[in-house]
Amino acid sequence: MENEQLEIIYGKNAVIEALTAGKREINKILISKNLHSDAKLNQIKELAQKNGVIFQFVPAEKFQQLGLGGAECSHQGVVAQISPIKYTELEDFLEQEHKHASLVILDGVEDSHNLGAIIRTCVCAGVSAIIIPSRRNVQINSIVEKTSAGAINHIPIIKVNSLVSAVQKLKNSDWWVIATEASAKDNYYSINYCDMNFALILGAEHAGVSKSLIKESDFLVKIPMLSDFNSLNVSNALSAIIFETVRQKNFKL
Amino acid sequence: MENEQLEIIYGKNAVIEALTAGKREINKILISKNLHSDAKLNQIKELAQKNGVIFQFVPAEKFQQLGLGGAECSHQGVVAQISPIKYTELEDFLEQEHKHASLVILDGVEDSHNLGAIIRTCVCAGVSAIIIPSRRNVQINSIVEKTSAGAINHIPIIKVNSLVSAVQKLKNSDWWVIATEASAKDNYYSINYCDMNFALILGAEHAGVSKSLIKESDFLVKIPMLSDFNSLNVSNALSAIIFETVRQKNFKL
Repeated sequence: MENEQLEIIYGKNAVIEALTAGKREINKILISKNLHSDAKLNQIKELAQKNGVIFQFVPAEKFQQLGLGGAECSHQGVVAQISPIKYTELEDFLEQEHKHASLVILDGVEDSHNLGAIIRTCVCAGVSAIIIPSRRNVQINSIVEKTSAGAINHIPIIKVNSLVSAVQKLKNSDWWVIATEASAKDNYYSINYCDMNFALILGAEHAGVSKSLIKESDFLVKIPMLSDFNSLNVSNALSAIIFETVRQKNFKL
Repeated sequence: MENEQLEIIYGKNAVIEALTAGKREINKILISKNLHSDAKLNQIKELAQKNGVIFQFVPAEKFQQLGLGGAECSHQGVVAQISPIKYTELEDFLEQEHKHASLVILDGVEDSHNLGAIIRTCVCAGVSAIIIPSRRNVQINSIVEKTSAGAINHIPIIKVNSLVSAVQKLKNSDWWVIATEASAKDNYYSINYCDMNFALILGAEHAGVSKSLIKESDFLVKIPMLSDFNSLNVSNALSAIIFETVRQKNFKL
């Protein structure tokens, strides 16, 4: 692997997940010399040996050189150099068979922590894939990988140049498109999510879903607010809606 | 105000919220000289003038001196020096009249972004208060204030020395106590949340709710996972459950 192509992931859970998922080539794992041994660190060492991945004990300063100094980063003394994630092509995804499946489309999510949390929530709720645009949206970076706690390795990420064109392709393939909008008439729980493939569009933290996508949507839904403070974090908005779809499907079984 | 007692909040939305809520004394607002004028900045200046709060234009380096250099902090060139949040006493809260109200208890939440997101979700979903322990839980800091987008000013925060003792007091005041636990038998949506005051306990990101609190709980609930990847972010877990309670209450109306 060329070093330029490598990404850094950090945190024990993220590294364990990457080693377990085995989907991406891991060049090297760096472990801080100051780190005390614990169950997770032992697991990392065992998995690395099993998979033939080199690990090195390095001085704590090495992490600062990698730009991982701040408390914010919480690298926990473990980082891995890893090949970038492999995006899935929308066309390839649509060629697979989907029955009562769900997709999440992100339109302008700006915060890395939010994207990481969204990826986790999607994996937990059995969402089939996440579509992000190649511009005007946070991309997959180290903070996303860390806050996704490795979930990134368990769900296809589809990156497209045009969300409008992606939504049109989905509709042509018999997917229903649902956009969240604060001014929508219907509450999200008034939709029956059980008998269709659906794509749920969530918008930017401030601006919401773009008008061009609202226009293409089959349903518009809102989350009812019990306070004047109408500003739910986008990952929490997703969680409320996506677990309602899980609830409906579980009740139907 | 003594400078030592002041806290820093940052970001345009957080400062606007603090000015609007008017619950805490704002000593001074610092605005970066490099900042271009926009609607939010104008709103900050107008609100400050209206409320007699001083604002100063300072060089960008001033923010670095305040320890707000990194991109992570996203202070957006606006910070305010503000009096610390006023905590509510549990006893005072319990003396108020509550009907079909909800409380959220956090047991060991470690991540500031999660706490901020939880506060936002609680305000949006009409939760009456949040209880945090004075130890082994992230406290209210600048990142929490920022990620709460000012929601912190719209909900009482109760800080207690012992969560077990707080839960016992709640039970003695006819509140029902519900803890989330991955191994619980019941799904969270199988509970009827409509006709009671309830306190929902969420645990640490990794360890879950403490055994001593599980023992005190009237109900244990889990969020069903549709994947082997069983690791929902705590703020997203809260959102799924708390908006189910909103759904139930709205349907009942």
